[in-house]
Amino acid sequence: MARIGIIGSEGRMGHALAEAIVATGHECSGGADRGDDVAKLADASDALVDFSAPAALQGNLHAAIGAGIPILIGTTGITDEHHLAIDHAAQAVPVLQTGNTSLGVTLLAHLVGEAAKRLGPDWDIEIVEMHHRMKVDAPSGTALLLGEAAAAARGTHLSAVMESGRDGHTGARAEGAIGFAALRGGTIAGEHSVYFAGEQERLQLTHLAENRMIFANGAVKGAAWLIGRDAGRYTMQDVLGL
Amino acid sequence: MARIGIIGSEGRMGHALAEAIVATGHECSGGADRGDDVAKLADASDALVDFSAPAALQGNLHAAIGAGIPILIGTTGITDEHHLAIDHAAQAVPVLQTGNTSLGVTLLAHLVGEAAKRLGPDWDIEIVEMHHRMKVDAPSGTALLLGEAAAAARGTHLSAVMESGRDGHTGARAEGAIGFAALRGGTIAGEHSVYFAGEQERLQLTHLAENRMIFANGAVKGAAWLIGRDAGRYTMQDVLGL
Amino acid sequence: MARIGIIGSEGRMGHALAEAIVATGHECSGGADRGDDVAKLADASDALVDFSAPAALQGNLHAAIGAGIPILIGTTGITDEHHLAIDHAAQAVPVLQTGNTSLGVTLLAHLVGEAAKRLGPDWDIEIVEMHHRMKVDAPSGTALLLGEAAAAARGTHLSAVMESGRDGHTGARAEGAIGFAALRGGTIAGEHSVYFAGEQERLQLTHLAENRMIFANGAVKGAAWLIGRDAGRYTMQDVLGL
Amino acid sequence: MARIGIIGSEGRMGHALAEAIVATGHECSGGADRGDDVAKLADASDALVDFSAPAALQGNLHAAIGAGIPILIGTTGITDEHHLAIDHAAQAVPVLQTGNTSLGVTLLAHLVGEAAKRLGPDWDIEIVEMHHRMKVDAPSGTALLLGEAAAAARGTHLSAVMESGRDGHTGARAEGAIGFAALRGGTIAGEHSVYFAGEQERLQLTHLAENRMIFANGAVKGAAWLIGRDAGRYTMQDVLGL
Repeated sequence: MARIGIIGSEGRMGHALAEAIVATGHECSGGADRGDDVAKLADASDALVDFSAPAALQGNLHAAIGAGIPILIGTTGITDEHHLAIDHAAQAVPVLQTGNTSLGVTLLAHLVGEAAKRLGPDWDIEIVEMHHRMKVDAPSGTALLLGEAAAAARGTHLSAVMESGRDGHTGARAEGAIGFAALRGGTIAGEHSVYFAGEQERLQLTHLAENRMIFANGAVKGAAWLIGRDAGRYTMQDVLGL
Repeated sequence: MARIGIIGSEGRMGHALAEAIVATGHECSGGADRGDDVAKLADASDALVDFSAPAALQGNLHAAIGAGIPILIGTTGITDEHHLAIDHAAQAVPVLQTGNTSLGVTLLAHLVGEAAKRLGPDWDIEIVEMHHRMKVDAPSGTALLLGEAAAAARGTHLSAVMESGRDGHTGARAEGAIGFAALRGGTIAGEHSVYFAGEQERLQLTHLAENRMIFANGAVKGAAWLIGRDAGRYTMQDVLGL
Repeated sequence: MARIGIIGSEGRMGHALAEAIVATGHECSGGADRGDDVAKLADASDALVDFSAPAALQGNLHAAIGAGIPILIGTTGITDEHHLAIDHAAQAVPVLQTGNTSLGVTLLAHLVGEAAKRLGPDWDIEIVEMHHRMKVDAPSGTALLLGEAAAAARGTHLSAVMESGRDGHTGARAEGAIGFAALRGGTIAGEHSVYFAGEQERLQLTHLAENRMIFANGAVKGAAWLIGRDAGRYTMQDVLGL
Repeated sequence: MARIGIIGSEGRMGHALAEAIVATGHECSGGADRGDDVAKLADASDALVDFSAPAALQGNLHAAIGAGIPILIGTTGITDEHHLAIDHAAQAVPVLQTGNTSLGVTLLAHLVGEAAKRLGPDWDIEIVEMHHRMKVDAPSGTALLLGEAAAAARGTHLSAVMESGRDGHTGARAEGAIGFAALRGGTIAGEHSVYFAGEQERLQLTHLAENRMIFANGAVKGAAWLIGRDAGRYTMQDVLGL
């Protein structure tokens, strides 16, 4: 049982984290939000989970270093400057920063890379994602993460091969392209499929999230995994042993 | 057993039709292509199936009227002028013109209309289609046909609510929109899914074509069904009794 | 806005109903459980929703009749005797009894019937369902409900054509059979697919429940729909206008 | 371009192989069937593909050894005795024996193993397969192959954890079980899905065969890959570099 502190405890994700910590047999050592004393929270914790805002990142890293405990960062909007700060902190404590804490998606990205590496360029890669009607951008960050895994496995960059939002007279498919399509509707928490379409056969790798709790559960599992590790920068792939 | 004549017998679809006619226990009374005598073919047939070209349509209709037999038209690129000629011919013989002769897609369009009529506007409609890598346009004609069935059932026109090829900052989904997404890859003969995404549940209606023979089979079934009917214009929906 | 009373308010479904009533803009007029005065609750309500136990059914129907308000019954384990009592009550007030209050499943059953009626016996029907790992029986009641809709549309009874749990040397598929398969795992709230597999094409009609709230939402929608109706026995199909 | 000889050239698979050899830019050096001289065929070939019968296996291996060329064996019904003969032949020439020559299924088995290894026992594994209505046994050999890949990755044997054909009162799912379900209908060439169902999320890995040509294409690719290799026993995994 670990004592886990939540930075950004009042948001939707903060509440999910509190639930996940208890459900997985750990203890929530408290929450810190705007103006709260993160250092105090860190002193009472074995690990910190940060789903607050980029502006708070530097202070949160300091608190973790001060207490000598690991920190998992799921905050979005991380810039190059933030990455430098994270690298610096990782010299002192274990740090894990990720855009998706779901174990299932982390594994899917690994499998997509495996498949893209093994199957030749005559297997066309297409990625389709579905999210609820309130989502304002397309493709989803997770779809891009999966596309990057496929592109990297083929020795290229996603930006060089990405085709998103086909419409009208498109011409035949470009060899090596990675296509993206986005569906929006209802309350869908998140569904991602990666197709490998070859000659008269296809593979289809799908991840389906029933609700947002999986992101909280994955974050807690990651934070618990970090406890007792050497200082350094880790990934969700490391948590799964990929 | 009916004697069915093929106009456009040398094309890919013509060959499929010849195979389908025999496979379903009918007799192929012959084929007519550019320059052949369609009237002669009509005299030896109980029904004609036309998958040739719009330019030949007027002559083909005349041949059917001359022989007093029905004609099924699967030719694409039909204009308003052609529709007038078809209506005129339908005063003399049974005529069926359609953009998709597959029984499965015909039924799917009916089911989509049923669902769209029953489910309120808070059920978001999305249509996704997959085709082989050589297809040059998106969305597919069949996807549009399904979208029109949904729009008509909601008392609107597809052009007023269609959203195709989402990409980038799209904003939240517009109420009443019908979304389209196109996947391309491999040798996929054609797969269409219509989603109705509501509050915490969804319906998903899918048609999957294993190969192009289903279009030939549906055309033959339609042609055989026309034999002995009163003069008039029919649809694939009529063939299925929808 | 309607005042809706919950009989069986302390169970898992009772809590979901309370949430659904408020979320859809109605008012929860209170709850009644073992020993509580249902007549008093009825007097304060515009409609009752009963998810308690069969043993309480007779008293609940009396309360609805006494107050002159409709009642929706989602209780499971309803016997022939209970059905007689429901029919009797339906002479005085509107009553709706159902095994599945989800709007999506109700519509799916209708679509399955439509498809089974239109497609000949050469389209093989298969039903597959997925539920969480704790479910103790197979196939699910909803899968059976869908199979009955298909069998009825073909003019037969499910018991005469049902094939469930294929394993080992089965021989070729019997013509007209309706097959069932059950998957179990994780926390899946409920997913049902009905396949119509024909010659080189297939239709696939799927319903996916994200969580149990849809059953509560459907019950509330049904209860609100009953208010102001003539006395009589109604179905979820009536609520959807099918 | 390689010269590939077909043993069992008159069967359905033999015809598919002849088509696949030409389509992939190779040359068919001829066919051998019951009573034909396989040694003569071997002398005119760079590799042999054997889809005949187990009874002919010993002679076919001798022919390959005599000509000093590789042989790919896709024959079913291979016993322990045959395996010994194959091992013996593999000391002289490259030999590849497999129950499924599809590249997609070979990769899928690899991905299933990867996923089963990484995900804990709280991710329930279920395998569902669909085949045409004439298939007489369940589950399919390929479904079993996938189940074995999952079981091996978890350090167990499939026979110890297999649950096939759930029906009736099954009780809650046993921890560590691998479930199988079989759907039958229409003309489906073969579709396999492996589900990993966890807490509120799931992964779904699917392979879809459009027709039987993929098995021929995979066999030709395997045979061509064997040419020039050292003597030894190879697998389809080796062909893909897994």
